[in-house]
Amino acid sequence: MVTIFLNRNGQTEQVTSIDRVWLNRSSNTFLWVDIEAPSIPELLILSDTFAFHPLSVEDARAELHYPKIEAYDGYLYAILHGIAFSDNSEEFATQDVDFFIGHNYLVTVRTGPSRSIESLQENAVRNPKVMNEGPVALFHRIVDAMVDHYRPEVDRLEERLDQLEAEAFDRPNSNTIRRILAEKRRVAGFRRIVIPQRDVMSRLARRDFVDISTDMSFRFRDIYDHLQRLADDAMIFQDRITGILDAHLSNVSNRLNEVMKVLTVFTTIFMPLTLVSGIYGMNVSLPHLPGGETNQFWELLGVMTVIVVLMLAYFRRKRWI
Amino acid sequence: MVTIFLNRNGQTEQVTSIDRVWLNRSSNTFLWVDIEAPSIPELLILSDTFAFHPLSVEDARAELHYPKIEAYDGYLYAILHGIAFSDNSEEFATQDVDFFIGHNYLVTVRTGPSRSIESLQENAVRNPKVMNEGPVALFHRIVDAMVDHYRPEVDRLEERLDQLEAEAFDRPNSNTIRRILAEKRRVAGFRRIVIPQRDVMSRLARRDFVDISTDMSFRFRDIYDHLQRLADDAMIFQDRITGILDAHLSNVSNRLNEVMKVLTVFTTIFMPLTLVSGIYGMNVSLPHLPGGETNQFWELLGVMTVIVVLMLAYFRRKRWI
Amino acid sequence: MVTIFLNRNGQTEQVTSIDRVWLNRSSNTFLWVDIEAPSIPELLILSDTFAFHPLSVEDARAELHYPKIEAYDGYLYAILHGIAFSDNSEEFATQDVDFFIGHNYLVTVRTGPSRSIESLQENAVRNPKVMNEGPVALFHRIVDAMVDHYRPEVDRLEERLDQLEAEAFDRPNSNTIRRILAEKRRVAGFRRIVIPQRDVMSRLARRDFVDISTDMSFRFRDIYDHLQRLADDAMIFQDRITGILDAHLSNVSNRLNEVMKVLTVFTTIFMPLTLVSGIYGMNVSLPHLPGGETNQFWELLGVMTVIVVLMLAYFRRKRWI
Amino acid sequence: MVTIFLNRNGQTEQVTSIDRVWLNRSSNTFLWVDIEAPSIPELLILSDTFAFHPLSVEDARAELHYPKIEAYDGYLYAILHGIAFSDNSEEFATQDVDFFIGHNYLVTVRTGPSRSIESLQENAVRNPKVMNEGPVALFHRIVDAMVDHYRPEVDRLEERLDQLEAEAFDRPNSNTIRRILAEKRRVAGFRRIVIPQRDVMSRLARRDFVDISTDMSFRFRDIYDHLQRLADDAMIFQDRITGILDAHLSNVSNRLNEVMKVLTVFTTIFMPLTLVSGIYGMNVSLPHLPGGETNQFWELLGVMTVIVVLMLAYFRRKRWI
Amino acid sequence: MVTIFLNRNGQTEQVTSIDRVWLNRSSNTFLWVDIEAPSIPELLILSDTFAFHPLSVEDARAELHYPKIEAYDGYLYAILHGIAFSDNSEEFATQDVDFFIGHNYLVTVRTGPSRSIESLQENAVRNPKVMNEGPVALFHRIVDAMVDHYRPEVDRLEERLDQLEAEAFDRPNSNTIRRILAEKRRVAGFRRIVIPQRDVMSRLARRDFVDISTDMSFRFRDIYDHLQRLADDAMIFQDRITGILDAHLSNVSNRLNEVMKVLTVFTTIFMPLTLVSGIYGMNVSLPHLPGGETNQFWELLGVMTVIVVLMLAYFRRKRWI
Repeated sequence: MVTIFLNRNGQTEQVTSIDRVWLNRSSNTFLWVDIEAPSIPELLILSDTFAFHPLSVEDARAELHYPKIEAYDGYLYAILHGIAFSDNSEEFATQDVDFFIGHNYLVTVRTGPSRSIESLQENAVRNPKVMNEGPVALFHRIVDAMVDHYRPEVDRLEERLDQLEAEAFDRPNSNTIRRILAEKRRVAGFRRIVIPQRDVMSRLARRDFVDISTDMSFRFRDIYDHLQRLADDAMIFQDRITGILDAHLSNVSNRLNEVMKVLTVFTTIFMPLTLVSGIYGMNVSLPHLPGGETNQFWELLGVMTVIVVLMLAYFRRKRWI
Repeated sequence: MVTIFLNRNGQTEQVTSIDRVWLNRSSNTFLWVDIEAPSIPELLILSDTFAFHPLSVEDARAELHYPKIEAYDGYLYAILHGIAFSDNSEEFATQDVDFFIGHNYLVTVRTGPSRSIESLQENAVRNPKVMNEGPVALFHRIVDAMVDHYRPEVDRLEERLDQLEAEAFDRPNSNTIRRILAEKRRVAGFRRIVIPQRDVMSRLARRDFVDISTDMSFRFRDIYDHLQRLADDAMIFQDRITGILDAHLSNVSNRLNEVMKVLTVFTTIFMPLTLVSGIYGMNVSLPHLPGGETNQFWELLGVMTVIVVLMLAYFRRKRWI
Repeated sequence: MVTIFLNRNGQTEQVTSIDRVWLNRSSNTFLWVDIEAPSIPELLILSDTFAFHPLSVEDARAELHYPKIEAYDGYLYAILHGIAFSDNSEEFATQDVDFFIGHNYLVTVRTGPSRSIESLQENAVRNPKVMNEGPVALFHRIVDAMVDHYRPEVDRLEERLDQLEAEAFDRPNSNTIRRILAEKRRVAGFRRIVIPQRDVMSRLARRDFVDISTDMSFRFRDIYDHLQRLADDAMIFQDRITGILDAHLSNVSNRLNEVMKVLTVFTTIFMPLTLVSGIYGMNVSLPHLPGGETNQFWELLGVMTVIVVLMLAYFRRKRWI
Repeated sequence: MVTIFLNRNGQTEQVTSIDRVWLNRSSNTFLWVDIEAPSIPELLILSDTFAFHPLSVEDARAELHYPKIEAYDGYLYAILHGIAFSDNSEEFATQDVDFFIGHNYLVTVRTGPSRSIESLQENAVRNPKVMNEGPVALFHRIVDAMVDHYRPEVDRLEERLDQLEAEAFDRPNSNTIRRILAEKRRVAGFRRIVIPQRDVMSRLARRDFVDISTDMSFRFRDIYDHLQRLADDAMIFQDRITGILDAHLSNVSNRLNEVMKVLTVFTTIFMPLTLVSGIYGMNVSLPHLPGGETNQFWELLGVMTVIVVLMLAYFRRKRWI
Repeated sequence: MVTIFLNRNGQTEQVTSIDRVWLNRSSNTFLWVDIEAPSIPELLILSDTFAFHPLSVEDARAELHYPKIEAYDGYLYAILHGIAFSDNSEEFATQDVDFFIGHNYLVTVRTGPSRSIESLQENAVRNPKVMNEGPVALFHRIVDAMVDHYRPEVDRLEERLDQLEAEAFDRPNSNTIRRILAEKRRVAGFRRIVIPQRDVMSRLARRDFVDISTDMSFRFRDIYDHLQRLADDAMIFQDRITGILDAHLSNVSNRLNEVMKVLTVFTTIFMPLTLVSGIYGMNVSLPHLPGGETNQFWELLGVMTVIVVLMLAYFRRKRWI
């Protein structure tokens, strides 16, 4: 689906097809062409109408590209990632958005719905500020909105880490390690998306490309700071997950210690008792304990009680119980 | 709350509002405007009176920014972190202080009380040296005081590490790993605050910005050295915590070994004894031991004693007991 | 085996020997000489006909070189790696292909069959585009095809990692660690092949060498992106394998915990029961339990049942069972 | 304590106070002022007589500075570390020495006795070579001697590591981990002292400062090489300690295995024997074994012997014993 | 021992002493002076005849220097390492060779026999190619031969790693960890020798020094490639050893699991049996089992058999046996 906005003399209107005259450098117009889930004929707009380099057109068609920005003859080509709509799953999904930024046009290509672009489209005609500042400013607006959508994702990640930490410390189970590793992969994936976008913003802020004004470079530096904080958060999360993993492994060992102490205390208390009962079960003439025949049973139980008390005292001194 | 100091001809006085004439480059005055916990109208001073760039004003309003320094047209904008007052908790808290350093003004924006700034304000009128050297020197004075407040925090961290080390070596318990990881996070957080401030000082010391005189660069290099030592301390602390964690895990294993040795020694001593008693408890005609019926019991006890002595000798040779 | 294609005036034909005239810079021809599994006389083509530098000829003869590109006087010499045909084994095999890229010739030297080169040779005569664009473009075509063959290998690696992860989590056995380490080595080997090839492409894309046109540099940047993604995939795989190893070790400890719990539960339940039976097996006058001689057996079994129930309740409270 | 040497026309004499004329650039003299454990009035020499920058004077007063070198207007300021005299403890102690290197003076400031400086002072008057080459050469001589004192410390570290390795492999005890971590901290501390001194020498060897002649840069490169080797040694030590820690942890696990094998072998051998004796202790009519009443005891012992032999064979096949 | 070769007009002859005329830059001669295990008078050749800088002469006398190359006035000074002859030990030994490369001389200094140098000396007179190309080419020849001797050492390292891997997986014993750590140290030592030599070759290949022709730089790049492959091999070895260590630790844990399973299976099977026998050994009136007095024994054995079968089924379901 192709949506086209034309800005002429400060007025924005939505049009249905592109007049090649508008693309002329001296035409005093600014075009925003947004292509969602492009069909093959729609892609011809890129290669024919705009005559973009075949390699950038091919990149725009492919999915799963890492964020980057490249200068081609007459335009900048950028790939950035937005957070996709799938709110119900734990896994966040990202979505490529491709940008062709020319002297008087901005072309955006995306594979599915994008909150950032759609909310700007809704305002494009009503609010002249959206398009009056030119293609680089519009590009900045879209990217700014895209990056703003990262924050809730980070908050959800943090929330899950809190839960995971509590689980690892207090209720570890055989599934904990699996969840820890899944979360670790998610955080690594998040960082892998944020870092190259930060680098793209850094290049824009440093004005590596001629088309960026000083003021725009300040704005890109602001997005850069935002992405830098997201990258720092991801780093902190990675440290936390490493800590949770360490704690989990340490807890597993600690619980083994607990189990072994229970076993050892029980075993070492009952073995002497069993021996005493075994000795007085021998079919030899047993020595008569003082106090007469009928009291022997209780005297032996008394011996056993003494053994138990001594063993418990021993383990208490060792701080096992 | 806005506090304004005006330095004119070497005299400092506190004033209540800003005369725009003073901001004129040729006015031979120097203004220090300190805004604490700014209200919306007070923030207008930044955007209207001083006409700072909207992005830096927005940064000054937001919290939780990482330390940085940026050159804008006509002024430097810096974010640095002070240690906040909360002395009773284990967690140290940091507080953003924003600086706008212009040719004849310094604007500081902060969200709460700041020991460093307030003690300078108390002296500003009495002591002409505070403001006579100009905005960069005043900025240096504030930052120097802020960084001086880091040292006690480091000392408290070190003290807690000493305790933690003693606990991990001598009295490990199920909470130790939790405390180790909490301390690790605190040290990492401390480093994350110190490193970017060091980098800001490094840029000032290297005179990346035109407004810094050679002498001021020496002074910033001094703060840089101070922060570098703090960063080194944080690094040393991280190494120590890693060592404490290693020691803790090793101790857990060692104690397991101890538990198992106790279990094994007890078990392997009592099992043969129980077997002897079991054999003489069999309902078959038992061979008569030499020495007559009445001595058999004591002879069997003698056999058991020999077994115990042999086992103890065996474990002693193995160095288990 | 030597295969020679001659492109003259836009027409490509296969020839059997090289006319030295064609090598003349002004001859308006373009030669592609492909040498497979070169014999000693065939190697003379490199040293005599083309007069390549002895060191590059020696490199072309040797196997097991790491990918690199070097500028010699009048030609570029590159070593790149293709994926060899061995589809049945788990181990992927790579194959050196050496390229000599001159002003009007391309010489490829390889030790065995190469899908990429052979499919281009089949089309070279029919399809004039293959050779009309000159040696650098032909070099790009071959490398592009070679790199395309890496993707299926990555997919197979990923598949094996999925299996390995499932095995480590659900069916760990004594062979798992061996398989984990073997896979780790394979991924490291894969990365070791991809990274230097990426660097070669990076140098071509940055136009470190004079013979590369802007348009060709875009195409090499495309291959660079492709290799970068492969390198990123290898990095992700390495992270995953580290995670699988952690999970495996954690699982081993967890299972030990399980084993010990079973042992402890059994031992601590049966030891008191055995003691009761031992006590009532002693040859002393036992106290008569209430209810008469014949019920004593059942009363003792009742006592044992109570012990079992108490122990089970204890372990349930400890969440062991 | 202030010690002053004056070199004039190739003659060195010890003087008691400084004539300001000597500091004149054209005075053809060379002064060496050594200040040990400076009192407040003695520090005035730095700020008043030599008029050094307040920041460098403050640095010279403070302790615990990391090695560094800085160019001030008219002189170089360097902090380096010597090994202090405390030979009886395991902990090595370092000592700051501050250097002010001017066009015709060298000022050294130190907090305590320094073998390197004192031995040069003893020779300064007798041996004209000590001071005839000027301040940079004298600075080199002192640093060279200071660095020479590091080697014995490294040898002692290595010796202790040898002992620790033997202990970890052969006689591990509950204190081993503590000693390993203490040694690790010591090596890290050593490296932390050597690395920045190496960097100072590197800057001198690269002639970052104008006052260094080519020949002096060769000499500083020599010290640089020396410090580089010390840093490499520290790195090797760190690797060794990591290895010792791994070995220790592996040994703890191995010994646990040994303990468990002893327990398991004993338990699994005695339990069947106890069962046999228990079965023949049952109060039911037992089947008569062949051979008559009196041989039953020996026949049951024979059965038990067979069980022991079978179990031992089983464990031998499993290579446990 | 000093060996001197003089190359004059393409003819090489062995001479016994050095005529100072030959050292004259215009003398059209080329001298190769090889000094093995230099005595003090022989070292005077370096300081007096050639007048080398005292620091480089001192370096040539000392042992245990790390590989490096330095430009002195009029000559290059390089230290490189050869593999020494000790073939019988597991430890490889390296040997310093010092090179002084001047405009018309090459001086080599070594502490012991060197295969690379001696085989060239044997051919120097017969084969004019050895010395006709000048000092840099001769230096290259020697280094090339030295580096060729590294390969067999790498092969032996690899062989030992194969053995070690098999041992760690299949026959781990208490010595395995010791051997793993020893091998790790050896590989680290190997890398520590190769890396700086590679860097020396890199500087020669990049022509950091004026005396290197383009063609010679190609040849040094070839040695650089060779050393790079050796360094890569060392890296692969380090990865393998890390993997072997992981596998060893994992195996130790696995075997503990095995031991514990055997213990648990035995214990949990025999404890119920012993309890049954204990209950029927109690001195109370036991309930008569159906089938008459004489069958009770067999009925109880039947009960025990059922218990054993049930326990075995339980452990089989848990996949322990």
